[in-house]
Amino acid sequence: MGKVQPEEKDVKEKTTEFSLVRVKSTWKGQLGKKINKDRVDSVSAAKICENVTEKGTTWTVISPIVFTYKVTETQGLLDPGNDTLLLGHINDPQQLEDIKKSNKPIRRFVVVDQAVFQIYGSKLTEYLEANNVSYKILALPTTEENKSMETALKILDEVNNFSLDRRTEPIIAIGGGVCLDIVGFAASLYRRRTPYIRVPTTLLSYIDASVGAKTGVNFANCKNKLGAYIPPAATFLDLSFIQTVSRRHISNGLAEILKMAMMKHGGLFELLEKHGSMLLNTKFQTDNSVYGCSTLKAASQATRIAIMTMLEELAPNLWEDDLDRLVDFGHLISPALEMKVLPSLLHGEAVNIDMSYMVYVSKERGLLTEEEKQRIISCMVSLELPVWHQEFTMELIQNSLQDRLKHSGGLVRMPLPVGLGEAERSRSHCLCICNKGGTGSFTFFAAELTV
Amino acid sequence: MGKVQPEEKDVKEKTTEFSLVRVKSTWKGQLGKKINKDRVDSVSAAKICENVTEKGTTWTVISPIVFTYKVTETQGLLDPGNDTLLLGHINDPQQLEDIKKSNKPIRRFVVVDQAVFQIYGSKLTEYLEANNVSYKILALPTTEENKSMETALKILDEVNNFSLDRRTEPIIAIGGGVCLDIVGFAASLYRRRTPYIRVPTTLLSYIDASVGAKTGVNFANCKNKLGAYIPPAATFLDLSFIQTVSRRHISNGLAEILKMAMMKHGGLFELLEKHGSMLLNTKFQTDNSVYGCSTLKAASQATRIAIMTMLEELAPNLWEDDLDRLVDFGHLISPALEMKVLPSLLHGEAVNIDMSYMVYVSKERGLLTEEEKQRIISCMVSLELPVWHQEFTMELIQNSLQDRLKHSGGLVRMPLPVGLGEAERSRSHCLCICNKGGTGSFTFFAAELTV
Repeated sequence: MGKVQPEEKDVKEKTTEFSLVRVKSTWKGQLGKKINKDRVDSVSAAKICENVTEKGTTWTVISPIVFTYKVTETQGLLDPGNDTLLLGHINDPQQLEDIKKSNKPIRRFVVVDQAVFQIYGSKLTEYLEANNVSYKILALPTTEENKSMETALKILDEVNNFSLDRRTEPIIAIGGGVCLDIVGFAASLYRRRTPYIRVPTTLLSYIDASVGAKTGVNFANCKNKLGAYIPPAATFLDLSFIQTVSRRHISNGLAEILKMAMMKHGGLFELLEKHGSMLLNTKFQTDNSVYGCSTLKAASQATRIAIMTMLEELAPNLWEDDLDRLVDFGHLISPALEMKVLPSLLHGEAVNIDMSYMVYVSKERGLLTEEEKQRIISCMVSLELPVWHQEFTMELIQNSLQDRLKHSGGLVRMPLPVGLGEAERSRSHCLCICNKGGTGSFTFFAAELTV
Repeated sequence: MGKVQPEEKDVKEKTTEFSLVRVKSTWKGQLGKKINKDRVDSVSAAKICENVTEKGTTWTVISPIVFTYKVTETQGLLDPGNDTLLLGHINDPQQLEDIKKSNKPIRRFVVVDQAVFQIYGSKLTEYLEANNVSYKILALPTTEENKSMETALKILDEVNNFSLDRRTEPIIAIGGGVCLDIVGFAASLYRRRTPYIRVPTTLLSYIDASVGAKTGVNFANCKNKLGAYIPPAATFLDLSFIQTVSRRHISNGLAEILKMAMMKHGGLFELLEKHGSMLLNTKFQTDNSVYGCSTLKAASQATRIAIMTMLEELAPNLWEDDLDRLVDFGHLISPALEMKVLPSLLHGEAVNIDMSYMVYVSKERGLLTEEEKQRIISCMVSLELPVWHQEFTMELIQNSLQDRLKHSGGLVRMPLPVGLGEAERSRSHCLCICNKGGTGSFTFFAAELTV
């Protein structure tokens, strides 16, 4: 029970840092040095700093939130005997045991991409029935054109009708990147944060959308203009979904794997050079493949390295406070290109065209040899990725980079490949292109690749 | 430049914890014990834990995000010479100096409640003009009925047209709690997080909505069903706005101050008992007040204690991971009451009716003496707050608590006052009422307070 302190006089300025300790039900600010841990029930990692001047008091609150999420490889995710989809996100062994013992049916709200539902719908339904789940499946056309607040609100309406318990009933998203992004966004808004689970069914989302914290929808004709940085409770990866992905969409995913290879893993680049077309032919599957065991090895190595290198870049910068992101390679100009020619280019294809141009910039700036440039472009071609597009103009390039400069307060440091599997970030790269320094590279790029 | 490792054989399970270190442009996972800090450019607080079994790999990402925000008292916020509104959120002295030296006009997007704009619009415009700000003011009717996704999208449309730079141009919200909540929500969504500033103009928002991280809008007839936990960059408090608040709305704010007093500060309770009606008469202002200096003292003490006790509870639990929240006192049944009789009860009024009933429960459970009960009810009456409502029925009480139990997995521990300025949280309180144990208290509550 607090007392009202008499107001102090003749104090010009006074700063006090309070730790926060809980005694029974109540949190109290305590001067940092005085904490006797035996006398309190817990000590928070948060702090309050109080600054008193003649003008008034300022309280500064410093409060860390720790995000923890899992990315898990599994096989046969929809086999009735595999409980990963329903329970794989739970870390507490006691909670897991309680649920397994309980007779209460598990409840799950599942959003599935419509095309994915056509292929896997009956298997999914059988899985849920076999596991005695009380469920609602919402199948939606989660295309780029439908990646909107409207779709998110439609999901939220249904979630609300399902009367979901946000503490224990994560929303499950099954589909490609657009589906995972919209559902993650809706879940992040519902009751200010409802856990969700990502199940990627395309190669691109398997190694990209699945592993990070970003969610979002398009708005005012801009990609992902609205969103949140809330990671899923868990992502469950099952390569067998990839077998029903079209050849073009496998290429699409390979573009993002190639990005990680070019930026930070020479070994991955060599793997793509050597096994890229085989991975395209086998769709990352071993069954009935003439390549047999070597597919398994290459497929699991390529995806694991892509995921680990991606996580290394995302985890220290989950909320993108640092603008200098290696994973933005290929993503500075491609969003404008992708939106401009929608739906003719897939995301990875647009990214690859951006990367292809940047390879020419790197070459011109002396960061890549002619041979390295050729190897990269050849690898792109072997992955059946477009390396050029008629709408990818110098005007588009400059406008995109100027826009990026503006939104970063002029601070963006553009990444460029340096040799195979290393990168360099520099502000001057970006400024150079904006000041028409990229025109030379563009001429070569256009001349050599337009066929 | 990484190398592809040969796959290990005969390993059943292997767990590796990686620290994350940055060398030049690239983040790399490193085994915890091997870090040589001289050889790396930075070490992240984030970690990746890799677990490899025969079934596949699981990566667990642990990534802390630190929220820092300021709550600042100031005077004359709209005096042209006071730069708090434009620059008070900036902590970096170098950045502040650069802005002050620069000739570039500051750009600000401002959302103001329509009623507030009618009173302070010309002063605000003059302030922005005098400070050479390039601005857009959006005046909106931010009532509970308009606290919707529609209003948030309207704000987002205008923000997008203003082509706001989310790095350097925080959105400013000026108004009551509804305005601050909607604008905070819209800002949190825009480009996945745009900083915003809260300027409360009502007593309730001054000590409540202003100090926490919650933003949101109503959805499907439920209060704040959609939202985010993103604190403002800064909140600027100016008591002089309160002078234009109606007497009823002053009472409304006093209810939340009383809540903090009852839960954790006996001194604040005594201050309200003694000076509550004076604060109501003077609207927390000293100018032209017959009470003079004692108003200043009581007004600043009451608001400061309310804010500090509130921050103590919010900072350790910014994202409400802990369901046991003292600040939920008065907020278990009131949301249903408030929505049911909308717009006839103000938020603080509904909260007070909830608290009034809980005082009777506390008395019946032996946590309050009859005298303490009387003192609290008398204090409520002196603050001109309703202590009873005909729609506040036993059915409403039980439904609300059952709903809360359900959404907490049965774990909610309801806070009750114990004496004056202390509280106790217990699951049994809540279960007791649900099982009709609250009927006795309800009978006394209804009999004594229905006049």
